[in-house]
Amino acid sequence: MPDDQPLPSPLLDRLAALLGPRGILTEAADLEPHLADWRALYRGKTPCVLRPASTQELAEAVKLCAAAGAPLVPQGGNTSMVGGGVPDEGGRQIVVSMARMNRVRDIDPLDMTMTAEAGVVLKAAQDAAAEAGCLFPLSLGAEGTATIGGVLSTNAGGNTTVRYGNARELMLGLEVVLPDGQVWNGLRRLRKDNTGYALRHLFVGAEGTLGFITAAVLRLFPRARESEVALCIVRDEAAALALFRRVRDRDETAVRAFEYMSGTGVELYRTQIEGGTVPLTGGEHYVLVDLASSRPDAGLRALMEAVLEEALEAGEVLDATIAESEAQRAALWRIREEHPEAQKREGASVKNDVSVPVSRTPELIRRSSAALKAMIPGSRPVPFGHLGDGNIHMNLQQPPGMQAADFLARSHDIMDTVNEIVRELGGSFSAEHGIGRLKTDMMESWRGGAELDVMRRVKAAIDPRGIMNPGKVLP
Amino acid sequence: MPDDQPLPSPLLDRLAALLGPRGILTEAADLEPHLADWRALYRGKTPCVLRPASTQELAEAVKLCAAAGAPLVPQGGNTSMVGGGVPDEGGRQIVVSMARMNRVRDIDPLDMTMTAEAGVVLKAAQDAAAEAGCLFPLSLGAEGTATIGGVLSTNAGGNTTVRYGNARELMLGLEVVLPDGQVWNGLRRLRKDNTGYALRHLFVGAEGTLGFITAAVLRLFPRARESEVALCIVRDEAAALALFRRVRDRDETAVRAFEYMSGTGVELYRTQIEGGTVPLTGGEHYVLVDLASSRPDAGLRALMEAVLEEALEAGEVLDATIAESEAQRAALWRIREEHPEAQKREGASVKNDVSVPVSRTPELIRRSSAALKAMIPGSRPVPFGHLGDGNIHMNLQQPPGMQAADFLARSHDIMDTVNEIVRELGGSFSAEHGIGRLKTDMMESWRGGAELDVMRRVKAAIDPRGIMNPGKVLP
Repeated sequence: MPDDQPLPSPLLDRLAALLGPRGILTEAADLEPHLADWRALYRGKTPCVLRPASTQELAEAVKLCAAAGAPLVPQGGNTSMVGGGVPDEGGRQIVVSMARMNRVRDIDPLDMTMTAEAGVVLKAAQDAAAEAGCLFPLSLGAEGTATIGGVLSTNAGGNTTVRYGNARELMLGLEVVLPDGQVWNGLRRLRKDNTGYALRHLFVGAEGTLGFITAAVLRLFPRARESEVALCIVRDEAAALALFRRVRDRDETAVRAFEYMSGTGVELYRTQIEGGTVPLTGGEHYVLVDLASSRPDAGLRALMEAVLEEALEAGEVLDATIAESEAQRAALWRIREEHPEAQKREGASVKNDVSVPVSRTPELIRRSSAALKAMIPGSRPVPFGHLGDGNIHMNLQQPPGMQAADFLARSHDIMDTVNEIVRELGGSFSAEHGIGRLKTDMMESWRGGAELDVMRRVKAAIDPRGIMNPGKVLP
Repeated sequence: MPDDQPLPSPLLDRLAALLGPRGILTEAADLEPHLADWRALYRGKTPCVLRPASTQELAEAVKLCAAAGAPLVPQGGNTSMVGGGVPDEGGRQIVVSMARMNRVRDIDPLDMTMTAEAGVVLKAAQDAAAEAGCLFPLSLGAEGTATIGGVLSTNAGGNTTVRYGNARELMLGLEVVLPDGQVWNGLRRLRKDNTGYALRHLFVGAEGTLGFITAAVLRLFPRARESEVALCIVRDEAAALALFRRVRDRDETAVRAFEYMSGTGVELYRTQIEGGTVPLTGGEHYVLVDLASSRPDAGLRALMEAVLEEALEAGEVLDATIAESEAQRAALWRIREEHPEAQKREGASVKNDVSVPVSRTPELIRRSSAALKAMIPGSRPVPFGHLGDGNIHMNLQQPPGMQAADFLARSHDIMDTVNEIVRELGGSFSAEHGIGRLKTDMMESWRGGAELDVMRRVKAAIDPRGIMNPGKVLP
C-alpha cells in the first residue's frame, strides 16, 4: 500500500472492537502527548493510539494491522533522545502505547529475577526490587518516565553501566509479539541456556523495528550495604583516566559509577540550578567516584581514601571531598544529574552521545573541545558522562549573546566535527541513545557494507512487510 | 547440487592454489584427526581440510565454496560435547580448521581488552592476559585445546560463569566471514555502542551455522590478588543452595565458582584417580566454594569462615575445610575437575547438560536422581557442576556388572527422563554445551513455534544457500 493512502477505516473499527474504549485513542487531545518527542525534534501524526492491556490483545491487534499493511510505532515512556518513539508526518503510522501493560508479574529473591511487563516504569521496577530486598541497578535520568520495554528496546546505559552493564546485560529472557502477530514466549529465567540463536539479543537494541518487547525477565543483585561518593578536581583529562584506572585496578567490582564533568558544566550547575552548591570550585576538570558493595564490611572508605591519597601524591587529583552522609552523597550526584537542566537554562546546546575505547577518552575530550571552540568562537564545550565506559556526552553550549536558532543551525556541523574525531579514535557515534530517527542517515557511513547488509537481511526476514517502526534505525 | 554428488574437483584445485600446500590437507592420515569428535559420537568424511592463514584467505576460500555450493564445517579445537565441529557421513562437507589463525593481535591493559584470532587456544589467551597483568576469566575443562572461535561459537560457560558470565558476556566485538565471503569487521573495543542490531550476539552461540568467527575483542579483568577455596559436606541439596545464597548475599562479586558434587562422584574420584585424596569423606553431598577478589585486603578468609560458621550452626553444612595454600586449593579443585575422567574409568556413563532456575536446583538433583535409579536399577547418578548458575551435569553411571553397550543403548531414555523433569522446572535441555548434531532433534519440541520460526528465517537470510555447518543446531 503506498505511503500516502489513508488507513482503511474498517481497520480502526476492528481495532476499536478488539481493544475496547480504553484501548484506543482517537481524539486529537488524547493523541497529542504521543505525537512529539520530549526534545521536540520531531512532531508527527497518527490516526490513533492503541493501548493494549495484554500480550494477547496486542498480538491480535498486530495481526489486524499486518493484514492491512498498517505501520506500527511502539511507544514506552517516550523519552527517546533520538526520536525513536514517535510517528512520522505521513499520518498512517499507528502509535502503540505500552502504558497499560505495567505489571510486575513476578519477583524471586532466590533466583534474583524479576519478570516485568514492557510498560513498567523503570523507577517502579527499581522500587519493586528494593521492596523484595534486592537491587535492579539500571539507573538513568529519565527513570521516572522511561519504561522497561523502552530501556530494553534501546539497550539503555546510564550511570551504573561500568559496574552492571547496559540493559542488555540485565536481561535473561523476553516475551515478544512478532510483526505477524505471533507471540514468542522466551521468558526463561536461566543463567545458562545455549539452545540456538540468541534471539533475545536481537530484539534488545532493535528500537522496536523487529517486534514488540512485551515483557522481560530481569536480573537482580544484592543491594548495596556500603557506599562512598567523592568529588575530585583532577589535573586534566588524562588524570581523570589515571584515577579511574587506580580505583578499577584496586577493586573493579566496587566501582558503581565513574563520571567526568568539565569545570564549565559544574559552573553552569552552580549558577543555573537553585541550591546548586559545589563544595570544590575553580577546577577545570571534575570526577565523581561512586563506590558500592553488598558487604557491610567492604572497607570502601579506606579504599577511597587510599586511592585519593595516591592520586593526590601523583599530582593527578588536585582536591577532593568525600561525602559524609546520604544527603551529601545525593548532593554530589545532583551536580552531575542536573547537567542537562543547567545546560537548558543557560541557552541552546547541541548534544553528542559518543563513545571511544576507555583509553582514548582524554584525547576525545581534549580534541573535540578544541575543535568545537575553533569552529564556533565563544561556544563552550560541556563534556560530561561515563568515563569508565568511554561514553562522553560531548555537548556544546551556545556562545553567550548568539541567537539560539543560529547556533542550532550548526547542529549537524557540530556533530560531524565530534564524530570525525570519534571515528579516528575507533569509537561509536551512538553510545547509549541509539539511532532512532535522528541518526539513521549516519548508518551507511558508519555501519555500511557487510554489517548493514546483514542488518537489512535480518529486518526483511523478521518483518517482511516492513510495518515495525518504519524510518527508524535502518536508513 | 544434490547431497550425493561429489564436489567438483576444479574447486579443490582452486582452493589448493589459493591456500597453498600448508593451507589444505587431502591425505587420509592428515584428515583423520578432523573427522571424529572427541566423545566418539560421530565419525564423518571430508574431501579436504582447509587451513586458512588469514581472514582474507578464508574469505576468498568461502567465496569459491559458496559459488560451488560446497558445505563448510568450521572447526576449532574440536572439543565439542555435541558433535558440533565434525562433518557428516556424506563426504561433501569441507572441514575448515582455524588452527593457523592463532595470533593474539593486541592486548590493552588500560582498555582491558584483548583482540584474539579464532584459532587461539583458550589457555593461550588466559596466559597472554596474565602476562599483561590481567585476567581472562573463561575457564573450562577443555581449555588446553578449545579455541577462542569455538568457545564463542558455542557460548561456552565453565566454572567461573557465576561471576563473569558466559563467553558471550566476555566479548565486545567480532570479525566474521559471512557465508558469501564478505568480511564483517566488528572488532570494536567499546563498552557502549548502540548502533543497530547486535549482530555480534547472533554469531556467538550460532555454532558456525551463520558464518566464521575469525577474531574477537575480549574483555579482561584485574587479576585476583586474594582467593579462598573451601570443600564442604552439606546436609542435602537444599542446604547446598542455602549455602550459595548465604555467600552470594554477603558479597556476590566474590563468588568465583560454586560447584556441587555428589558423594558418589567424590568417591569415584577417590577410588579411580591416582593420588585422589579427599580431606572430607563419607558425605552424600559436597560443595566447592571458590572466593576471589582483586583486592589484596578483601578479607575473604574472614568472610568464608563467617559464612561457614553460620551454615554449620544452621545445620546446612556438616563439615568443611578451607585450603591453606595454593597447592591445597588446586587439590580441592582437582576433585571437581577429574569428575569426567573418574566417570570414564569407572565404566560407561550418560551425560546431561541441563539448567534450571537456580532456586529449582535441589529439586532437579533430587527428582532426577530418584527417577534414574528407578529406571535402571543399580545405576548411579553422578550429578555435579555449576549450582550457582543452575547448571547441573545430571550424569548417570552404569550399574556395576552391566554391559556398557546395553547401558548406552538407554542413552535417549536417560536423557528424556531428565529432560522431562527439567521442562517441568522451567529449565533448558542444553545449558552450556549447545546443540551441535546431538540435540538438533530436540529443538522442535523445546524451541518450536515462533522461536524456531524466527531462527529459521534468520538462518535463511544470512546463509541462503545453507552452506554453513549443515545439520547442526537447526533441525
